[in-house]
Amino acid sequence: MNAEIIAIGSELLTPFRQDTNSLYLTEKLNDLGVDVIFKTIVGDNRERLTEAATQAISRADIVIFSGGLGPTEDDLTRECVAQALGLELRRDPKIVSALEERFAARGWKMSPNNAKQADVIAGATILPNPSGTASGQWIAGKYDGGEKIIILLPGPPHEMRAVFDPDCMERLRAKVPPTFIATRVLKITGIGESHCDARVAPIYQKYPEIQTTILAGAGEIQLHLKTQATNLEDAQRRADQLVEQIEAELGDLVFSDNGDSLEQIVGYYLQMRGATVAVAESCTGGLLAERITSVSGSSRYFLGGAVVYSNAMKTAFADVPAVLIAEHGAVSGAVACALADGIRKRCGSTFGVGVTGVAGPTGGTAEKPVGLVFHALASESGVDVVERNFPGDRNRIRQFASQQALDMLRTKLM
Amino acid sequence: MNAEIIAIGSELLTPFRQDTNSLYLTEKLNDLGVDVIFKTIVGDNRERLTEAATQAISRADIVIFSGGLGPTEDDLTRECVAQALGLELRRDPKIVSALEERFAARGWKMSPNNAKQADVIAGATILPNPSGTASGQWIAGKYDGGEKIIILLPGPPHEMRAVFDPDCMERLRAKVPPTFIATRVLKITGIGESHCDARVAPIYQKYPEIQTTILAGAGEIQLHLKTQATNLEDAQRRADQLVEQIEAELGDLVFSDNGDSLEQIVGYYLQMRGATVAVAESCTGGLLAERITSVSGSSRYFLGGAVVYSNAMKTAFADVPAVLIAEHGAVSGAVACALADGIRKRCGSTFGVGVTGVAGPTGGTAEKPVGLVFHALASESGVDVVERNFPGDRNRIRQFASQQALDMLRTKLM
Repeated sequence: MNAEIIAIGSELLTPFRQDTNSLYLTEKLNDLGVDVIFKTIVGDNRERLTEAATQAISRADIVIFSGGLGPTEDDLTRECVAQALGLELRRDPKIVSALEERFAARGWKMSPNNAKQADVIAGATILPNPSGTASGQWIAGKYDGGEKIIILLPGPPHEMRAVFDPDCMERLRAKVPPTFIATRVLKITGIGESHCDARVAPIYQKYPEIQTTILAGAGEIQLHLKTQATNLEDAQRRADQLVEQIEAELGDLVFSDNGDSLEQIVGYYLQMRGATVAVAESCTGGLLAERITSVSGSSRYFLGGAVVYSNAMKTAFADVPAVLIAEHGAVSGAVACALADGIRKRCGSTFGVGVTGVAGPTGGTAEKPVGLVFHALASESGVDVVERNFPGDRNRIRQFASQQALDMLRTKLM
Repeated sequence: MNAEIIAIGSELLTPFRQDTNSLYLTEKLNDLGVDVIFKTIVGDNRERLTEAATQAISRADIVIFSGGLGPTEDDLTRECVAQALGLELRRDPKIVSALEERFAARGWKMSPNNAKQADVIAGATILPNPSGTASGQWIAGKYDGGEKIIILLPGPPHEMRAVFDPDCMERLRAKVPPTFIATRVLKITGIGESHCDARVAPIYQKYPEIQTTILAGAGEIQLHLKTQATNLEDAQRRADQLVEQIEAELGDLVFSDNGDSLEQIVGYYLQMRGATVAVAESCTGGLLAERITSVSGSSRYFLGGAVVYSNAMKTAFADVPAVLIAEHGAVSGAVACALADGIRKRCGSTFGVGVTGVAGPTGGTAEKPVGLVFHALASESGVDVVERNFPGDRNRIRQFASQQALDMLRTKLM
């Protein structure tokens, strides 16, 4: 079976807002073995919305609408879908009372336009909205020559999920032929996208029944694998087989095969080893500490960090000798090592990380260009340093550098 | 005139990828006074793409396709658009030679499938692609009963822009009736979305010819204003008038009327006053320093930061007396003040900022729940502290707290 998702709202046709509901719904539909064949975005316009609804009902088995269920004149989804289906709208007195009660409970009188939210397409099942006033609706039957399922959902993402998850997944599962889907995500670092693809393409191409998607960010590649079969074991076995072969090819470049972020993985390892870390960062400006502490519970292994932009602070917070900075320059392997070792001793942590570089766009020289970053990792056994030249803008260079520093810690802990 | 944007690619119908080209194109079209009435996303499927193209050509004046211009079997845009228009595809020998040369220059032999990229719809103008092998195409004429403009663009965003900007904007401007558009963006902090809207809606509703969009994030509201007129002065005057009235209503809650971020504004003020800042942050974990240093040139006013998760580090890096922590707890106004004052003295900066709180999801108590954050700002004249209870998850609470801290600095500097 296939589906079309229609997002409704004139704000979704501006440069500032994007429909994100369809990503969530696509994932859920895919889990049921349903492919999404079209996504349409249409404004709050009666004629165009009716046209889009009519087309979608003619070409897809399942049509999901999100948005346009509010109380204002602009909210047209109920009436346009009813028109596209050739069905009546009926005002449901029970919903009207529930709306009135909801307003009364807050000490407000309901304005008459709100009653519009009680309009139900003939034959539709009402899908209660625990997070708002706009109920969803479910219609299943023979329309336009085929069995169709039509779902109306509210537009705000938390309301959409609050209606879809409890009320639509099981209903859909009962209607959709049973398929079992296995998905795996591999996260990879320390290799570029084209090199990675050159190594893994010959492997995944041997599995045409597994859909493989490569996504690349600054210093991180994700391989999304997905396959379906008529029983879960087969699907899972096939996906696991491919994962195993890719992991054998890439080895330790794969840092996660269950969706965890690099900072989470580093956190697991640190906890497992009963180790702690402290960081002294210059060009990443707090990003490294921010990523480590974005993980809940990181206070168990993260002792502290110093953002040492000025040379004086490098000395004051991480005991980098002023003479070392004078001799090698603030952006140097020697200073990165001194930062890592200094912050480790200062904080009494198992590991110390030091990062110094040129994030740009200004401050680069012929000798030390924008993108040059030194990363150091200090432990009881000594200090390692890695020099890299990252491409991209300030933001991307900082992202790359934080990724490299985290990966040094991961590799050390493995 | 109006437009429809069609994004082509099966990967855009997965949960992992989103069409972003349409946001860019919408902004450019809006600048020309062209409204986008539909966005459609369709996979690499001959029948569905032809259907989408046929519909779009029938209902919009301008139809822009992005994607599906590559050399593989999946790249179908050229042939499907030709079919929808009832036109022939002709292989252009000049493009074939150019492609062959491009490959030869890299020492490669062109594989035959690449020649497909030289197929041109009869009557189309070729739009060269300086960033890749897929040329764009421009077709203008009478189709489906009206004057239409049809544009084919490559899918990768940097290629799409490299083709659209030089080759389509001027051509479109020549075809579209002249309209002048004025846009303004106001950024606001220190007030919630509904309170903000309650204060400004009565003002912007007096200007129905200005389109007002409100976007709300954690601790920041943006008001996007846009209006069009037949001369630029009129459009600009109208938008400026509304901006003036909103600024009069909201006063210092508006921190930017030209698109600058809060960290940029704080940076301007610090430089203007010849002042410097240092930060000591606990629950924000480096985010505050990261935001300040995300601004290029911030090394001129940002001296350093300490991420002090453990109590020992609060004492070691910001000289917070251990007895103060024991007495008030690490999450307290007293400790926030001591962090701000301590880091200021330690770094010798004009201002010191201290943040301590419970970012959650764990670590909350009845007395100090998740979301409770103390923000302090120290200067020569003393220390101010603000206590807030933020809603949301760990990420959102950290975002709110960094915004509050930056805003205290902004207000102090004004």
